[in-house]
Amino acid sequence: MDYIARIKKLQQRLKRRKLDAMLITQPHNRRYLSGFRAVDHDISESSGVLLIPASGKGLLLTDFRYQLQAEQEVSHLTVEIYTRGLSQLLTTLLPQLGVHSLGYESHYMLHSGVQQLTKDLQKTSVQLIPLLDIIEKMRCIKDAEEIAAIRKSVRLNEQVFQEVYPKIKPGMSEIQVALLIGQLMREYGAERPSFDTIVASAENGALPHAEPSHTPVTANRSLTIDMGLVLDGYCSDMTRTFVPGTPDATYKKIHRIVRQAQLAGIAAVRAGMTGQEVDHAARKIIDAAGYGQYFGHSLGHGVGLAVHEAPRVAPRASQKLREGMIVTVEPGIYIPGWGGIRLENMVVVKKDGCENLNSDTTFLDI
Amino acid sequence: MDYIARIKKLQQRLKRRKLDAMLITQPHNRRYLSGFRAVDHDISESSGVLLIPASGKGLLLTDFRYQLQAEQEVSHLTVEIYTRGLSQLLTTLLPQLGVHSLGYESHYMLHSGVQQLTKDLQKTSVQLIPLLDIIEKMRCIKDAEEIAAIRKSVRLNEQVFQEVYPKIKPGMSEIQVALLIGQLMREYGAERPSFDTIVASAENGALPHAEPSHTPVTANRSLTIDMGLVLDGYCSDMTRTFVPGTPDATYKKIHRIVRQAQLAGIAAVRAGMTGQEVDHAARKIIDAAGYGQYFGHSLGHGVGLAVHEAPRVAPRASQKLREGMIVTVEPGIYIPGWGGIRLENMVVVKKDGCENLNSDTTFLDI
Repeated sequence: MDYIARIKKLQQRLKRRKLDAMLITQPHNRRYLSGFRAVDHDISESSGVLLIPASGKGLLLTDFRYQLQAEQEVSHLTVEIYTRGLSQLLTTLLPQLGVHSLGYESHYMLHSGVQQLTKDLQKTSVQLIPLLDIIEKMRCIKDAEEIAAIRKSVRLNEQVFQEVYPKIKPGMSEIQVALLIGQLMREYGAERPSFDTIVASAENGALPHAEPSHTPVTANRSLTIDMGLVLDGYCSDMTRTFVPGTPDATYKKIHRIVRQAQLAGIAAVRAGMTGQEVDHAARKIIDAAGYGQYFGHSLGHGVGLAVHEAPRVAPRASQKLREGMIVTVEPGIYIPGWGGIRLENMVVVKKDGCENLNSDTTFLDI
Repeated sequence: MDYIARIKKLQQRLKRRKLDAMLITQPHNRRYLSGFRAVDHDISESSGVLLIPASGKGLLLTDFRYQLQAEQEVSHLTVEIYTRGLSQLLTTLLPQLGVHSLGYESHYMLHSGVQQLTKDLQKTSVQLIPLLDIIEKMRCIKDAEEIAAIRKSVRLNEQVFQEVYPKIKPGMSEIQVALLIGQLMREYGAERPSFDTIVASAENGALPHAEPSHTPVTANRSLTIDMGLVLDGYCSDMTRTFVPGTPDATYKKIHRIVRQAQLAGIAAVRAGMTGQEVDHAARKIIDAAGYGQYFGHSLGHGVGLAVHEAPRVAPRASQKLREGMIVTVEPGIYIPGWGGIRLENMVVVKKDGCENLNSDTTFLDI
């Protein structure tokens, strides 16, 4: 990936906003600009931040634990280590760099962290300027190299699904299926799952975000698998629902409604359409079939370095889709006590339509 | 767990601070007061918040996706669903409840989230009051039921380690070992690992937070395994370093220094000692042996619902340890190009000493 070009693009934006530098705390934004692969498990346990001046070389600020990794993975930035916390280091570093106005990511700094930094910087002339989504806006349009990376991630995810599917037998627990998926993902070279795999059998499928349990996979009842992986930083996300055994008439009826909604959603995706127009195209199929109340979430979301990112494809998403965006199309119907059906593909927005990144069509049409 | 008693305790604190209610956004704090087991994968993807008034019944506010789970798991709180976001719901709910002063967790609200909420609440008479660590301070002293839960978590973690250990053969990749650990954790009933398992062979061990790679486990070189699991919400955390094969003289020498430091740290733990005194007791052993520069992290941290929580056991931790706190004691020596050795146990602070929660002593004394 061309990190240097991305940083230059950011630096142009900083100059336009008359900012001397920007502090990047959001981990995906950090990776987007640096290639630093460390993962933050929690906003309060950062593995490092970037300090990008409006011109000149940027810095990666991290602590002792990540020093070797940072030096191995990042060559276009200067690695600096903080020993007494980031805020302390910034109070000496910013004046040295001649920074008077520092932008920060208001959407990925804790309120208390901004309070602390404001206090610590009082002895300097540095002004803190809250920013929102500057790098997220850059990230939501994928370049050819990113689309290729996501395509590989989708393909590997489908390969894992295809290997796991024939091994699923009624009686295995949801957890066992989820573990098998996780194992193959890692063995095949994924960095990690892009989210906790969902394996939800029968009525558990009525919870869109069900956690796998010791419940056994039940013959002739629905099974929803929502899975994704991270490959070279980029995420995939796919959901398939099917019946181990023989689907009954109710299942078939609802599955076909969800699939029709998905096809209508995919057909609506093209540059210039808003997220809500695409959401509506799918939702109206489910509404018309009388299941509107059972589809309570958005139709889709962007996918890239983060498994959930801009743009939104949702009832109140007024942002227009643009060429190079990648979004999921994932309608669902969830009926408490019965179960749920969700079908999810990923598509790349094109000028006159979209490209379906999923080549696997198993269990879509029944 | 006695959630009702915990909420009463919090309500006393709210009354003392003359707050009408508190908004709880931190996921472990949410679980501590509610038992709601949902997991937030990211601060910007909350699965719900608590609204606890200074008196009367509290509320769990969540969205459609978690409604069933919330109703199943939480009976002592009223479950309310937001469809247009939390901030929107609060603007109608708070005036209805007669809330004029609302405390919030400054250390677990995004800066932009507080900005948004402040803006939305302008049409009401609600004042927002930033709070820090109110519930964390309650959480850091464990009651008997919590100590029992953590003991079980530690025991299960040790059991997994004991089952995995004989299966580790030179040539297996670090990832394969990590997957085996993850698989057993889940099969034995853990909710999930409490952090990404670290399996670091030979020079990879020089990175304290190494991610498992495709590097094979090397015979006669060090292997560090840092693993923990979540059982009924409570975490365990244990590190063992050993040599598959025959350790050389250098390994033995460094291992013994780390173990001496660990024993000195454990011996220093008792109510009334500060975190820095305990840290110093262990660190001086490593310093005296000439390896001080290779021990760059803190000696330990609290463990409970979160795998890293208060109190700190670190060079500048002035907080006194108190009875019922549970902390790790985990000195390490990390030498770039050679590898690393870390040994980690968990202890419960007692009046006159501590109780070592780890019964497994394999690989501690060599």
